[in-house]
Amino acid sequence: RDVQEDTLTTTEVAQVVKKPWYETIQLRGYAQLRYNGLFETNPDLQCSQCDRSWGGDGGGFFFRRIRMIFFGQIHERIYMYIQPDFASGGNNFAQIRDAYFDLGLDEKQEFRLRIGQSKVPFGFENLQSSQNRIPLDRNDGLNSAVVNERDIGVFMYYAPSEIRKRFSYLVSSGLKGSGDYGVVGLGVYNGQTANLAERNKNLHVVGRMTYPWELPSGQFIEASIQGYTGKFVINRNPLTDFDQTEFSEFRYGPSIIIYPQPFGIQAEFNWGRGPEYDPVTNDVKDAPIEGGYVLATYMLKTSKDIFIPFTRYHYYKGGKKFELDATRHRVKEFEIGVEWQLNKSFELVGMYTISDRTFENSLNPDNRQKGRLLRLQAQVNF
Amino acid sequence: RDVQEDTLTTTEVAQVVKKPWYETIQLRGYAQLRYNGLFETNPDLQCSQCDRSWGGDGGGFFFRRIRMIFFGQIHERIYMYIQPDFASGGNNFAQIRDAYFDLGLDEKQEFRLRIGQSKVPFGFENLQSSQNRIPLDRNDGLNSAVVNERDIGVFMYYAPSEIRKRFSYLVSSGLKGSGDYGVVGLGVYNGQTANLAERNKNLHVVGRMTYPWELPSGQFIEASIQGYTGKFVINRNPLTDFDQTEFSEFRYGPSIIIYPQPFGIQAEFNWGRGPEYDPVTNDVKDAPIEGGYVLATYMLKTSKDIFIPFTRYHYYKGGKKFELDATRHRVKEFEIGVEWQLNKSFELVGMYTISDRTFENSLNPDNRQKGRLLRLQAQVNF
Amino acid sequence: RDVQEDTLTTTEVAQVVKKPWYETIQLRGYAQLRYNGLFETNPDLQCSQCDRSWGGDGGGFFFRRIRMIFFGQIHERIYMYIQPDFASGGNNFAQIRDAYFDLGLDEKQEFRLRIGQSKVPFGFENLQSSQNRIPLDRNDGLNSAVVNERDIGVFMYYAPSEIRKRFSYLVSSGLKGSGDYGVVGLGVYNGQTANLAERNKNLHVVGRMTYPWELPSGQFIEASIQGYTGKFVINRNPLTDFDQTEFSEFRYGPSIIIYPQPFGIQAEFNWGRGPEYDPVTNDVKDAPIEGGYVLATYMLKTSKDIFIPFTRYHYYKGGKKFELDATRHRVKEFEIGVEWQLNKSFELVGMYTISDRTFENSLNPDNRQKGRLLRLQAQVNF
Repeated sequence: RDVQEDTLTTTEVAQVVKKPWYETIQLRGYAQLRYNGLFETNPDLQCSQCDRSWGGDGGGFFFRRIRMIFFGQIHERIYMYIQPDFASGGNNFAQIRDAYFDLGLDEKQEFRLRIGQSKVPFGFENLQSSQNRIPLDRNDGLNSAVVNERDIGVFMYYAPSEIRKRFSYLVSSGLKGSGDYGVVGLGVYNGQTANLAERNKNLHVVGRMTYPWELPSGQFIEASIQGYTGKFVINRNPLTDFDQTEFSEFRYGPSIIIYPQPFGIQAEFNWGRGPEYDPVTNDVKDAPIEGGYVLATYMLKTSKDIFIPFTRYHYYKGGKKFELDATRHRVKEFEIGVEWQLNKSFELVGMYTISDRTFENSLNPDNRQKGRLLRLQAQVNF
Repeated sequence: RDVQEDTLTTTEVAQVVKKPWYETIQLRGYAQLRYNGLFETNPDLQCSQCDRSWGGDGGGFFFRRIRMIFFGQIHERIYMYIQPDFASGGNNFAQIRDAYFDLGLDEKQEFRLRIGQSKVPFGFENLQSSQNRIPLDRNDGLNSAVVNERDIGVFMYYAPSEIRKRFSYLVSSGLKGSGDYGVVGLGVYNGQTANLAERNKNLHVVGRMTYPWELPSGQFIEASIQGYTGKFVINRNPLTDFDQTEFSEFRYGPSIIIYPQPFGIQAEFNWGRGPEYDPVTNDVKDAPIEGGYVLATYMLKTSKDIFIPFTRYHYYKGGKKFELDATRHRVKEFEIGVEWQLNKSFELVGMYTISDRTFENSLNPDNRQKGRLLRLQAQVNF
Repeated sequence: RDVQEDTLTTTEVAQVVKKPWYETIQLRGYAQLRYNGLFETNPDLQCSQCDRSWGGDGGGFFFRRIRMIFFGQIHERIYMYIQPDFASGGNNFAQIRDAYFDLGLDEKQEFRLRIGQSKVPFGFENLQSSQNRIPLDRNDGLNSAVVNERDIGVFMYYAPSEIRKRFSYLVSSGLKGSGDYGVVGLGVYNGQTANLAERNKNLHVVGRMTYPWELPSGQFIEASIQGYTGKFVINRNPLTDFDQTEFSEFRYGPSIIIYPQPFGIQAEFNWGRGPEYDPVTNDVKDAPIEGGYVLATYMLKTSKDIFIPFTRYHYYKGGKKFELDATRHRVKEFEIGVEWQLNKSFELVGMYTISDRTFENSLNPDNRQKGRLLRLQAQVNF
């Protein structure tokens, strides 16, 4: 360092340099414990994308998520976010969910480059943290676009400072916003989804625009439009040299969120094309996709607790590219329940689900399952 | 918040709310490095439940445990405990051991509800941390009840404040207590043991009572009684559609602990029934279980170090439900050794083991192994 | 607490005893995100030891490393270092890299005993952290001695205090030293490399001497000599009862490092013997090994950034014991690139690689691949 610098400056620099690690890096997290075993009418009704403890011979208590988030502004222009999940791999191993770094491109960091594994900006509910989402699982319609919501790549986000603050407020206030994925988001990513090796030389491309209006009444309304396209490599059974495994896919759709002040409505839909198993020909072909949901909530605050009764209807018609043979799905599901926030650290959700799910591939080409069950979750935030 | 509150209170509340993450969440841990290769007389003598580096073609240095514990009182009524082990999965992957949350039901938190994956309250040695246990591995007799000691479920613990302090003292003083699992503990849990999916719709039930008396001399004596029952699904080889895989099981038994002040005695026993491989019929059948141990220790404190010579005899007769075909076991083992605590952070254990183990399943229906070996462990606490 | 104690003493004692966990244990880390897809001329040119995203059908963005290091002086004589990698196991699971503890044998800690899993002191580039290395991957010549550089065992390091400080300075100054593995290092270790079970009763032995001279000009020059020997058990295909799997191996060689002030040269070579697949006989036999590299760098500092243009040529002829059948390798690789340090937290590397690699085993007994590609890496330090 330059000896000529005045003492004050030196001291300040020293203090910046010596900021202890625990003020730069922070730790927080949450865990979700579930029990799906009550009043189940059909154990063959399952949703592996949603919750592996739903249906089947087993069930019992199940950790859906144990998340620990190491995050912080590690440099004036670099923000770190590393989130392993400790309930992964089927046996509670630790596996990365997010591992990304935001590089602020301008002084106000209105333009950010996000590199690493992070959420693909497609769909409000996909971007919203599971810590904040009210229904236990994401809707099949939009979540089937990016299983686990994430992929590895490079994303560019832009939002004016004022809107960045608004995105932040929509989470910190308890209004259950999506977090800050920019007013405009653009990205390229592998496309095989999180924690899986890329299997072709093709990158996916995604774009999203969203805007959260604040009405004079204080009511927030957010509207978005998003789309992506790319080539995906599926797993097939049986795999012969003649079988096609790489398929083009694309999706696009709108979102509308009327934040619960106190009555909220949230609706999203998407259309597109992608691979889907055909039980008639026992083959996988390119097919149309459509799906979405509407969610109604009511935020009821008492002096101590918060209750959020809700109901959601969601629908999906298409293949799930990440399941064997791009499993053919036809999903209609109606849910009614309540989230009870006892305090900042503890929440309970009870949700009654009435479901009609068809999920067919070469191992099970005729498989429509209907049923009902009560689903329970305890969530701890730390 | 209420505006009428006086300023001082508000400030205090604000300070409580803004408590930095590193004062709420704490980190500690320990690691155990072993070497079982000295003076081994029979490489076919093994105990996969105890230590995978004992016996076989290999051996060498081996990390038995690398534990990091993230814990803390995250809310005045909620205590968090998340403990991954970084020496799991056979290749040093990180896997959850504990992930539980204690919900204090009363102001003094004498009644606690524990949700998540935690130790099943069956047996003192099972509940005692491996960080504190003197012999390198738990006794087969009681540890075969709950492999890895843990399961996922809901447990209720009750202890008066005074006894909660005593449980705490019995650990912090170096007397090697079990920690606080209540004077009364009751729980329901999946029953397939930690980190494994539930395989039937049946929950296990466990109950335990324990009491640590303090005699006028200052001597502590603890006595317990415990029992559990449930249905377990075993792995069989070969698996045909006709083979039974679900078996009822139950166990019960007493514990007595005379804490080492300086001479200590610890004894436990349990009886029960459960699945066991039968080499005569090459089938698995319901069979009686019995087993236990007696451990004698002597706490020798010098000005700097602590030496704890010890000897243990343990015995088991029954199947191990979590091994293939509920492997038939007949175990008689005698150990003599010493734990040397050089300081709070570093301990060495040397232990000479004389063992007679029968472990038989369909892959190896005639397998009785006798032998002796020296086992060494270095433990670091942080 | 005893009220009679005077205040000052109590406070002092309390501070020592109560030193909070976050001042004892610290956290830091780094992550490396790569893209190898540009200007690739031959997708069959691969190097599984280097980077699994190089070559093949896939590619795309890839996390080569996500490291979090928990470290600290947990006792006046004990230093802890636990480093999991969160980009392991092919699907971004957390797996241990280092887990070791240094026991200071003398007051100045010039003699240290290192127990646990740590780097085997064989080769400067092997010991240098990937966080500091300039070329993206280590050279095959010396890195094939200890894949992942690490093993589990007991090591003894000696260096005078003055040289310990110099080792430290050679890293902290940005000169990209190896860290402190002693002026003399000796060790015994399993030999099957990190995170893998030992497969024979034989331990490997390693020794190394190194010395970093400081010339009157301020120029640092380091020279080393190292060697190891042991017996390794390979994986073979097909494995019959007649196939030999255990092979003796040894290696030795020198290192010379002229630190980049501003022009640097680094060269290492090793010779030895070990198992190697023979495509003519389709068998594995004992064969000679040789390999090494020379690296030239130039440290260019601007007011804000640091640029380090570099070029490396490396060569290897021998088997890789840790690959199937001790895969036969013939490697000649030339690299030219630049590392750009934008700030302490963010670095970019671009590197053009011209490669000629033969890698042959029973699955692919005739496999020589030549090609060129551009490799890119973003590294974040936190």
